Amino acid sequence: MSLGAKSLEDMITEAVRKELNKTTYPCSKLDEKPGAAADGELTVPIGISARHVHVSREHLDILYGEGHALNPVKELMGGQFAAKEQVTIVGANLRVMENVRILGPLRKATQVEVSKTDARKLGLNAPIRESGDIKGSMPITLVGPKGAISLKEGCIVAMRHIHMNPADAMRFGVSDKQIVSVRTGEGVRKGVLSNVMVRVDDSYTLEMHIDTDEANGLGIKQNDAVSIVK
Amino acid sequence: MSLGAKSLEDMITEAVRKELNKTTYPCSKLDEKPGAAADGELTVPIGISARHVHVSREHLDILYGEGHALNPVKELMGGQFAAKEQVTIVGANLRVMENVRILGPLRKATQVEVSKTDARKLGLNAPIRESGDIKGSMPITLVGPKGAISLKEGCIVAMRHIHMNPADAMRFGVSDKQIVSVRTGEGVRKGVLSNVMVRVDDSYTLEMHIDTDEANGLGIKQNDAVSIVK
Repeated sequence: MSLGAKSLEDMITEAVRKELNKTTYPCSKLDEKPGAAADGELTVPIGISARHVHVSREHLDILYGEGHALNPVKELMGGQFAAKEQVTIVGANLRVMENVRILGPLRKATQVEVSKTDARKLGLNAPIRESGDIKGSMPITLVGPKGAISLKEGCIVAMRHIHMNPADAMRFGVSDKQIVSVRTGEGVRKGVLSNVMVRVDDSYTLEMHIDTDEANGLGIKQNDAVSIVK
Repeated sequence: MSLGAKSLEDMITEAVRKELNKTTYPCSKLDEKPGAAADGELTVPIGISARHVHVSREHLDILYGEGHALNPVKELMGGQFAAKEQVTIVGANLRVMENVRILGPLRKATQVEVSKTDARKLGLNAPIRESGDIKGSMPITLVGPKGAISLKEGCIVAMRHIHMNPADAMRFGVSDKQIVSVRTGEGVRKGVLSNVMVRVDDSYTLEMHIDTDEANGLGIKQNDAVSIVK
């Protein structure tokens, strides 16, 4: 491998990483003022998930070629990562969304997570589900540089949730799978989100995951602090 | 005017009206199950506003030709109407949104109302404002069949609000410009929206106006019933 080739690869990865930092979380790129919770309260930082895809080995073979390995460009919580690889997704109405990021590592089943706004554009009444729960979810087509796959099910809207480790769960006085409400900052669109599931695991970093509709509708920005209301 | 020509015009208007019923409120077209508030509570029905445009006489002359009159296809509250006429809007990043509906009647100043999701796609950090308050808002370009106009300001995200007549205000025990919170239905994305302004006028029909981000983020559908929390 020549030094020149490595540098080019590095440059491309760097460019993708830069782009990814701009685009993975569309809500964080324009607003600068962070939200705030009341003084002294325990708060949870927000992570906003833009549309993304999880893929199986079998499907990555089809989309990107036999044995292709995902190239991590950004580390995420719990051993996950954003990959350099992207796909185009096509809805029931044949409308498309381009440059949809693949998250690694590979999973048993391919899954497409979109917002309700996305789903409606794609003509899909995608159900709100926990990640991994795709039975009876919406059909969708993924197109990669080497091939396409049409899934009979796999398109969902992610259910909002809070990740934390056992020490955080102690601090907050909550347990795994507990349902809580969350009070958002003090902005013009402030409010309360109910039915938020707490997930506790040693590998988790304290973070509440919401999608772009929830972020935009409630005026929540990446890394905003929200409070748990039990 | 021949009968044939009139029928064709009627057919077109009918087709547009049908399309409009599908598209003006994107959140109402896929979900069927209405939300519900607790028994016996006074509730307010939801109207979901998709992106739309209000235009001045001067600007309609440019977009659709000198003296062009808007063709109403759907009556809205307070003497307003959705027109058959649409424009393409172009953001700072030159990305576009097509088929953006014009609402009549004509106004003093042209104004484009989009969601935060739309604004981000268009590269605009559009402020959340009451309708008509466009000073210092975002620049945007409108393109019609006869011409285009580039506004220095005019693109906003609509601030959520409740319209009601004085009799409703009495029933709810609220007054014009009072700020209330609103509790949404019992769905998986239920919650509370704060900072909701009440507007009281004889011409108003009881309705809370939210945009597509708020609707999708909170799982609210067209005509859902929400409760006022003071």
